[in-house]
Amino acid sequence: MENFEFQNPTRIIFGRGILKRLGQEAKSLGTRCLLVTGRKSVKETGVYDLVKKNLESAAIEVRDLSGVQSNPVLSKVHQGIGIAREGSIQFIVALGGGSVMDTAKAVAAGVLLEGDVWDVFEGRAAIERALSVVCIPTLAASGSEMNGFMVITNEETGHKLAAGSPHVYPKISFLAPELTFSVPRDYTAYGGVDAVCHLMEPYFNGPAGFTPVQDELAQGLMRVLMKSTEACLASPEDYNQRAALMWAATLALNGLTRAGVGEHPFPVHLIEHALSAIYGVAHGAGLAALLSGWMKWKAKFHGPEKICQFGRHCLGIQEGSDQALCAVQTADRFRDWLKSIGCPASLSDLGIAEKDHGRIAENASRQAGIWGIEDQYGRDTIAQVLSFCQ
Amino acid sequence: MENFEFQNPTRIIFGRGILKRLGQEAKSLGTRCLLVTGRKSVKETGVYDLVKKNLESAAIEVRDLSGVQSNPVLSKVHQGIGIAREGSIQFIVALGGGSVMDTAKAVAAGVLLEGDVWDVFEGRAAIERALSVVCIPTLAASGSEMNGFMVITNEETGHKLAAGSPHVYPKISFLAPELTFSVPRDYTAYGGVDAVCHLMEPYFNGPAGFTPVQDELAQGLMRVLMKSTEACLASPEDYNQRAALMWAATLALNGLTRAGVGEHPFPVHLIEHALSAIYGVAHGAGLAALLSGWMKWKAKFHGPEKICQFGRHCLGIQEGSDQALCAVQTADRFRDWLKSIGCPASLSDLGIAEKDHGRIAENASRQAGIWGIEDQYGRDTIAQVLSFCQ
Repeated sequence: MENFEFQNPTRIIFGRGILKRLGQEAKSLGTRCLLVTGRKSVKETGVYDLVKKNLESAAIEVRDLSGVQSNPVLSKVHQGIGIAREGSIQFIVALGGGSVMDTAKAVAAGVLLEGDVWDVFEGRAAIERALSVVCIPTLAASGSEMNGFMVITNEETGHKLAAGSPHVYPKISFLAPELTFSVPRDYTAYGGVDAVCHLMEPYFNGPAGFTPVQDELAQGLMRVLMKSTEACLASPEDYNQRAALMWAATLALNGLTRAGVGEHPFPVHLIEHALSAIYGVAHGAGLAALLSGWMKWKAKFHGPEKICQFGRHCLGIQEGSDQALCAVQTADRFRDWLKSIGCPASLSDLGIAEKDHGRIAENASRQAGIWGIEDQYGRDTIAQVLSFCQ
Repeated sequence: MENFEFQNPTRIIFGRGILKRLGQEAKSLGTRCLLVTGRKSVKETGVYDLVKKNLESAAIEVRDLSGVQSNPVLSKVHQGIGIAREGSIQFIVALGGGSVMDTAKAVAAGVLLEGDVWDVFEGRAAIERALSVVCIPTLAASGSEMNGFMVITNEETGHKLAAGSPHVYPKISFLAPELTFSVPRDYTAYGGVDAVCHLMEPYFNGPAGFTPVQDELAQGLMRVLMKSTEACLASPEDYNQRAALMWAATLALNGLTRAGVGEHPFPVHLIEHALSAIYGVAHGAGLAALLSGWMKWKAKFHGPEKICQFGRHCLGIQEGSDQALCAVQTADRFRDWLKSIGCPASLSDLGIAEKDHGRIAENASRQAGIWGIEDQYGRDTIAQVLSFCQ
């Protein structure tokens, strides 16, 4: 196990009927809040009204930042910062998926910065403080409700960048599985795949046998995520399965399974960002298209042991003496699972052809430069990974 | 899954060579600390000097509270409160096992209370604030380094009681696996059993299939604890195994595996407290003597499903059609494991005879009354459990 530090201060309130406590719990954070939402669904389902009324019943004044889109953009963050400053907002409530929560965090940090919040993403400024953030996720996927990260796209430069700070951990997150009953089939599946990918990237990074605690936690959460995703597709209003999917997705990126595994980039996320940027693919769909190919590439160039371990513990693969073969079987069986839940499982499934690899690799390698991992994931390496994903 | 709240603010600094950062990290908490230690070992190994010098090198004045014993006592807490008040102590450093950490927490809370700290344990007063606590565990066992609980014995009344508060979560815990290289064989095993028991009691409490996330986490941690305990007995200075044992023991009682499983008393801990009180048995040894019998009792009177699930996932039991038989096999195989690591596995192994059950049940049922679980664990029920543990 590598040396590590771990701290996660977010308070989780989980379960049925918890949203009626929102105003009561939030009023310790102030009397003026900004409510950040996405495009439509929370208004259609009535959750928006419920949340707003509950806040107002606790004498909290609510301003709105609505219309946050997938792959959330800097201009929306700027708009939120403007509203927050103008209204002397004291805390932010995010009601939506990862994009909404990430936008809320960026606004929370940006309001108290002297310069532009984008400087933080470019590494030119540090977050010293932020307004309090309360999250109410409506999708089990990103894990943003219990971590200190946010990913924002600068539409002018085309850069999609992540930033993190202890100051943007949500103060409280209300996890209400019932809010996810109405998530469409495709996004239920994409969310499950996103969470599995958050676990896989650190898990596949290290050598076998080095991190038994983290491996057990990751394997257990991956099994739950796979089973509960299937179960939620079969019965979208099964509370206990929606609850398992939601809590497992939150724990998948709250730092616990990463602590102690050592440095690990997120190459699948890196390449997926390029797919989203170029083709407008949904994040989880892009990850699904890459994952089984990446496993085969990883097994071939970095050793098959950890891929086989995943196959053995999460897919019921019987391991023979040939580890390389076992890794290929693992990747194929995972690809079959992705297809079984209705996800694309290759670049072809997304309609992307081999001739497009150069363009994707170009975009992703620029991103790798900004992430500081261009040594490991240069243009040629990324193109090689893509060839396994075709 | 039941509704739950979860928050754990403790900052963990884990690894090799981390103690040299102690003074630097702790000085934000103040310039006057109380260093709480046990009887001898930290002075013999030189860790005490290292810690004290490191604190002093950061211009922190150190006072001592030494000689904390197993099953830590109220008089020692009172002594610590006296020293802390007299020296205007600002924070507490605990260097030792669970007894030392629990004593440090009780002092930290007691210093700022107007009345007697024992009132908190008896439920007559609440902790509104506490001095900051820094933990440096020297044993992988109690989990006190990452939770808000403490257990103290009042020597005058003979009551051993637990209390908890968000204010006594350690601010920082330094987890240095190398400190446990010198833990003797018996206490290495007892520590592993204590941590397994912390996971088992909530795990066995709920119905099968109800909490898949929590079950996966608990099963994974139990497997790691069992394997790493064996490995540490075989090679006491295997860093990676000591690290796995330490981190798994910390996660075993940090709230994560309990959140969402619903109300669960700790009956094995309840009965063990009586064994420790009457016979002076080491805590982990007492738990070991009770666990396999308790499993058989639990299977018989509350259903065998969860016991079988443990057997299947943690002991390699092949489940047939007869769940009751499977539960007995599970309990027997766990008993064999306890023996294999040198632990007592029944009351007989501790030299306790059937005629002593009444006395133990009497003591434990009094404790159950104080815990408020006498309806579930009255004298007759406890005597019945004991008959399975003989």
